[in-house]
Amino acid sequence: MTDEHRAWAYLSRVTEPPSHEVAAYVADVGPVEAAARIKKRDVAPQIARLTEARHDIDCAAEDLEVLARLGGRLVTPEDPDFPQLALTSFNGAAVRDRPAGRPPMVLWVVGEESLADVAERACSIVGTRAATSYGEHQAADLAAGLAERDVAVVSGGAFGIDGVAHRATLGADGLTVAVLAGGVDVPYPSAHLAMLHRIGEQGLLVSEYPPGVRPARYRFLTRNRLVAALSGATVVVEAGLRSGAANTAGWAEALGRPVCAYPGPVTSSASAGCHALIRNGAFLVTRVEEVVEMVGAAGEIAPEPDRPSSPLDGLTDVELRAYEALPRRGARTIDQVAVAAGLPPTELLGPLATLELAGLVLRREGKWRLATR
Amino acid sequence: MTDEHRAWAYLSRVTEPPSHEVAAYVADVGPVEAAARIKKRDVAPQIARLTEARHDIDCAAEDLEVLARLGGRLVTPEDPDFPQLALTSFNGAAVRDRPAGRPPMVLWVVGEESLADVAERACSIVGTRAATSYGEHQAADLAAGLAERDVAVVSGGAFGIDGVAHRATLGADGLTVAVLAGGVDVPYPSAHLAMLHRIGEQGLLVSEYPPGVRPARYRFLTRNRLVAALSGATVVVEAGLRSGAANTAGWAEALGRPVCAYPGPVTSSASAGCHALIRNGAFLVTRVEEVVEMVGAAGEIAPEPDRPSSPLDGLTDVELRAYEALPRRGARTIDQVAVAAGLPPTELLGPLATLELAGLVLRREGKWRLATR
Repeated sequence: MTDEHRAWAYLSRVTEPPSHEVAAYVADVGPVEAAARIKKRDVAPQIARLTEARHDIDCAAEDLEVLARLGGRLVTPEDPDFPQLALTSFNGAAVRDRPAGRPPMVLWVVGEESLADVAERACSIVGTRAATSYGEHQAADLAAGLAERDVAVVSGGAFGIDGVAHRATLGADGLTVAVLAGGVDVPYPSAHLAMLHRIGEQGLLVSEYPPGVRPARYRFLTRNRLVAALSGATVVVEAGLRSGAANTAGWAEALGRPVCAYPGPVTSSASAGCHALIRNGAFLVTRVEEVVEMVGAAGEIAPEPDRPSSPLDGLTDVELRAYEALPRRGARTIDQVAVAAGLPPTELLGPLATLELAGLVLRREGKWRLATR
Repeated sequence: MTDEHRAWAYLSRVTEPPSHEVAAYVADVGPVEAAARIKKRDVAPQIARLTEARHDIDCAAEDLEVLARLGGRLVTPEDPDFPQLALTSFNGAAVRDRPAGRPPMVLWVVGEESLADVAERACSIVGTRAATSYGEHQAADLAAGLAERDVAVVSGGAFGIDGVAHRATLGADGLTVAVLAGGVDVPYPSAHLAMLHRIGEQGLLVSEYPPGVRPARYRFLTRNRLVAALSGATVVVEAGLRSGAANTAGWAEALGRPVCAYPGPVTSSASAGCHALIRNGAFLVTRVEEVVEMVGAAGEIAPEPDRPSSPLDGLTDVELRAYEALPRRGARTIDQVAVAAGLPPTELLGPLATLELAGLVLRREGKWRLATR
């Protein structure tokens, strides 16, 4: 446990993240000096104001011990594993205008994978806690499909779509990342204790909050920007008109990442938020291939879905007219075909011969008839 | 029955519509002379070729009698009731490149309404014959909603979505137009005989084919352009990946008319064509209000759907942080609230007072607690 780590741990708790001002001050003087001067209240008035309420809480050592017991680590901006979240670089003005649109100062991470590597090829799957079985089925299907294609699945650990996405990824031996709105030692919701534990072992638990911090409404909104920022694309599987998933989608959009949404029945309120997103420009997706295409790796264009085919596909207009000029039963002379098709007999003989070669029509005793199929 | 009408009736049958060349010739010399010279084969080689197969069929008088018995009329380009279909004016190049992208020469119409008036405020509802009960329900709901808003419902008279749309419009005492791919005296499908008869009495049956002509595959495709052209917007309610509805939508797009599609479960093949259309730029719609907005009358913007609301709506960031800093049970001093919120006590007193006025928090004996709701 270095002085730097203790300083970062102290700084992580001393303001409510994200605090642009405190982060800038730390970047300026370094974490150790920043922590020492904040403790002594030896800082400019703005920093003093932002750290006033918590400046004398120093449980950095205990926090790092809790993290170590969970097998976790503190990832700082100096760490090569600190993800390049581009929270201020792309579409910067729009993101900076939002109070939470800032990179995290440090990240509390449980799990063995490299966060930076995982974020290179990741997709978030988010949605309503009040998911329907339709939505749960789509989320599970998508998560498993992404896992098969080595795309990590990022979500928020919540009930409903989030939980299904995490579980299906684990079930497919894929990598999943839960970004938490509280400390990595605070299982939330508590019913997801076992699942979050497994994510910490097989995937990654990530939080910008120190141990012990409980989730709160504004922390969910702040957390959502990290879900979007860690993902090449964000997919909303089901969402009501008022939904945290729409908030995550908003972050993805502000960050210039593709937002995808699943359609559903217009009668399902759990799809109403998805439909609103699509009306506002989100990509409608129906299959994992269409999502992978958005995640960002080159050359992964979704193949066109198979369309039902007909033996009449590829016929020219005149061939189709000749074909359709024949009765369902019985035969017609070339002159009768010409009247029905509205074309001269001379222009129909070639097309009829083509149709005969294709096995679609028959010629017997100078009359034409449909081949029985 | 004037000579002109007999000439138009003859011309309507002598070529397979739409024939740009014959129409141009008729416009040039007038219908009576055009008919007489085509009958005598006294025309330029191209016109002779196009009319060779049927030039000696003259059942114009009989056709007009059949039409009169049905209570119908022939609507010619000289007639004020001939709709301005803009088939060549808007997005002209794209439409002209398609063989069928031409106005009809004449229209055989059964019904009392003015076709031109109806087309002023009309919307087509189209879709698969293999509709699901979900799609049928949406089509009926939409058709009835359009009827209530005095929007005429145009469709193709087929099984599935078309039939439901016509019937629901009739049931709501609305105006509905069936554009047929055969003669107005040829009920197709025959199981829709009664429905088509009722449409002729309460709405309009429209065809560019003379009496007795049977529908054929290429006639359905040709007919679809009229469905799109008579409508301010085209709505596809359900469609497979291979569907005539997609063809109608293609016409609407080529004509510069909005194409709308209903979403559905991604597991339903009857919605796959709709999803493909939306992915290619069609508007996702879920309610009649959103469709009416597209039909073209000014000032009919769909109201936003009601969102669930919360008493916390409209709180500022700091108010929300103060609110969430209070425990679910029990009370906190202002200093405890400050630590939880990560803000100085002095900055929290104002927001807490606002929350107290709003009835969201209570102050008792110098401590703050959540108001029980």
